[in-house]
Amino acid sequence: MSRPRPLSGFPELLPADRLVEQTVIDRLRRTFELHGFGSVRTRAVEPVDVLLGKGETDKEIYLLRRLQADETDAGAGLGLHFDLTVPLARYVLENAGRLSFPFRRYQIQQVWRGERPQEGRFREFTQADIDVVGDGTLPFHHDVEVALVAAEALSSLPVPPIRMRVNNRKVAEGFALGLGLADVAGVLRAVDKLDKVGAGAVAAELETSVGASPTQARTYLAFAGIRTEPGSAPDSAAVAVRALGVEHPRLSEGLDELTAVITAADEHVPGVLGADLSVARGLDYYTGTVYETHLQGLESLGSVCSGGRYDELARDGDRVFPGVGISVGVTRLVAGLLGRGLVRAQRSVPTCVLVAVPEEGRRVACDRLATGLRRRGIPTEVSPTAARYGKQIRYADRRGIPYVWFPGPDGTPGEVKDIRSGRQQAADPGTWAPPAEDLTVAVRAVEEETP
Amino acid sequence: MSRPRPLSGFPELLPADRLVEQTVIDRLRRTFELHGFGSVRTRAVEPVDVLLGKGETDKEIYLLRRLQADETDAGAGLGLHFDLTVPLARYVLENAGRLSFPFRRYQIQQVWRGERPQEGRFREFTQADIDVVGDGTLPFHHDVEVALVAAEALSSLPVPPIRMRVNNRKVAEGFALGLGLADVAGVLRAVDKLDKVGAGAVAAELETSVGASPTQARTYLAFAGIRTEPGSAPDSAAVAVRALGVEHPRLSEGLDELTAVITAADEHVPGVLGADLSVARGLDYYTGTVYETHLQGLESLGSVCSGGRYDELARDGDRVFPGVGISVGVTRLVAGLLGRGLVRAQRSVPTCVLVAVPEEGRRVACDRLATGLRRRGIPTEVSPTAARYGKQIRYADRRGIPYVWFPGPDGTPGEVKDIRSGRQQAADPGTWAPPAEDLTVAVRAVEEETP
Repeated sequence: MSRPRPLSGFPELLPADRLVEQTVIDRLRRTFELHGFGSVRTRAVEPVDVLLGKGETDKEIYLLRRLQADETDAGAGLGLHFDLTVPLARYVLENAGRLSFPFRRYQIQQVWRGERPQEGRFREFTQADIDVVGDGTLPFHHDVEVALVAAEALSSLPVPPIRMRVNNRKVAEGFALGLGLADVAGVLRAVDKLDKVGAGAVAAELETSVGASPTQARTYLAFAGIRTEPGSAPDSAAVAVRALGVEHPRLSEGLDELTAVITAADEHVPGVLGADLSVARGLDYYTGTVYETHLQGLESLGSVCSGGRYDELARDGDRVFPGVGISVGVTRLVAGLLGRGLVRAQRSVPTCVLVAVPEEGRRVACDRLATGLRRRGIPTEVSPTAARYGKQIRYADRRGIPYVWFPGPDGTPGEVKDIRSGRQQAADPGTWAPPAEDLTVAVRAVEEETP
Repeated sequence: MSRPRPLSGFPELLPADRLVEQTVIDRLRRTFELHGFGSVRTRAVEPVDVLLGKGETDKEIYLLRRLQADETDAGAGLGLHFDLTVPLARYVLENAGRLSFPFRRYQIQQVWRGERPQEGRFREFTQADIDVVGDGTLPFHHDVEVALVAAEALSSLPVPPIRMRVNNRKVAEGFALGLGLADVAGVLRAVDKLDKVGAGAVAAELETSVGASPTQARTYLAFAGIRTEPGSAPDSAAVAVRALGVEHPRLSEGLDELTAVITAADEHVPGVLGADLSVARGLDYYTGTVYETHLQGLESLGSVCSGGRYDELARDGDRVFPGVGISVGVTRLVAGLLGRGLVRAQRSVPTCVLVAVPEEGRRVACDRLATGLRRRGIPTEVSPTAARYGKQIRYADRRGIPYVWFPGPDGTPGEVKDIRSGRQQAADPGTWAPPAEDLTVAVRAVEEETP
């Protein structure tokens, strides 16, 4: 094989960077499990009709075909999933009789999209989703919960402070209806472009395609421009909306929900969450609360954690399964941080101790010493060769392994050296332990390193 | 969507069974990392020519095609990987300049094969591989190491005792050459069918297609029938082979290596490993030690952990990368155990404590109590509804959550109940902790449950 080249859109990491990704995934998982979310792994493939939902064909899906397939089973109608929500809905329907509701699951898996690769967009990437799914009904407090769990999970990572922006689809719809604009979908579609095309263009579209008067368009844009900072009074977004003088029952309901999410966030994850009435998260299945999350100073990465409420995640005849969920874009987050040099693993291997081999004939004794350290939970390698000690130390140094153990003569325990400080001391392999921060690989934001 | 049905060959697990699989994966990973293996995750896809290697076309590969692709890029020549060794070889070549050798990596990922599904064979399954890859050379002691690490990892699982069978390709080749049979590949191909077709048919094939005399065929079959039990003298396979009176330098080298693996296993994982000179592991890239592993009493599952030495894992011009590795068939193992009811998770969710909600208006206080427990590492949920306590206890019971916390009146801490024993006691949420065996989900072999 000649030297292969990377495939655009299919990111892979070198070992030290993979340790960063693993740490991110481990910490997300830890938070999810602390909140009682259980893991689900779904197969990578779904029938194409499931992936395409209501017959959309604009999705960039990868279809499968067996190399040995005869013409009749070409493809067998399977494709790779492009998110973890469609598989969740299918899994819930398939197993409804065997799941306990409300069903709380997390799912950390690859997904695939045939998109044109660009910064922050990949053809294969990892998502970490949590969802709560009800059977028939699902209390509103779960809308609050998933936002808090996601904020807590992100706060456990070596990343810049997060800013979570929350809105409620009922607020946007209720305001449009209260304003007398009946084509709610048209309004949302126009306002969804606000960031891209600016207020003037959106106002023009509202007037031409939704039939808004200039006053209606201006009022809706004033509404969509409302945003509140974390720490301001929890009802300040609601107050600002009500000051515009528009009323509708759906608007009131939405504003109450929005205020409830912000109130809870202020208590549990202060300084993180604010209202932003322009947040729409597309036009598809969301029906209530919607969230998106940016890293402060890294807004250009896009949202690293988004989601919301969908009153009809799945349906089986008359049986409806509402859900609320949120998804962390692990690859976007990790690739974004690594690409900017903002996070780093302190070594490239899990190994904490390298046992040096004085001569090949003593390898068995070295293996025994290593076994003793591992039994006490200390990741340990034995040097691959009995080269001179300088070379063995370089083996450790190149990988960032902090300690080298030099076995003593005649089965004596010998000495352990911290190769960073150069300090070397006699030690007993039955009791010696490294400081906790050296035991596992530390992954830190790079700023933290400069004292 | 109507009720979906499972896809044959694409196994999925319910939450309690997924906890079993996660536990297996976590313990494998833990052992691998204790031995200094670092994680690699490769993309799911490879160019088809990489997957097909030397032009073989009998592999059952899934090819990809973008739904929106125009004719010119149909497929883009990508397929899903069918193992983790081909991607490793490609990753090593692609990153050779940025990796440190010997390179020790583990990789736990899905792989896909378009095979006809049957017991123990899937179209999507999880493998857990470790490999050590050298640059130019790779000392033999790594052959010993990967077998011991795999045995230690499997021994950490809630599975029946394992039996690892080891052979060495040099032994088989050297014996054939020493016996005067020059068509070594033909000999191996015939003997590889021993289990399936029996000694008589293999002898006939040796005579017809390899040109062996009846005596040569009989001698080779006597050789291939040699196996030793764990605990017998480490050189007993070598002694039995030498008693057949065949000599060849390659045979001697192979027997020395075989004896070395068994000697080390006797010290580090006694009672596990024996020689079996019929083990061939196919005819492809192995060049030295080969292993396979069965669960005692579950031999029908097939090998759950196999691998070996390949002197040419990858090559870039004159630069050769030898490797030795072993692969645990996670899905085969877990599905086999679950299908036979041999292993079980003690609950279906990570949750250890359910905080009961006396009335909806006190949810905030309940959330605060739960936050306190989580801060001390106790997985905690708050009841989704303020239903009567009997119903909330049933919520916990149905999921196997062992403890329900009843908040007291006026912000007093209240009492915690072990719903298995019914014992209830006043407790302080700032200090109370469950016994260690209740903190995380215990996964146990089912026999262990009957005292």
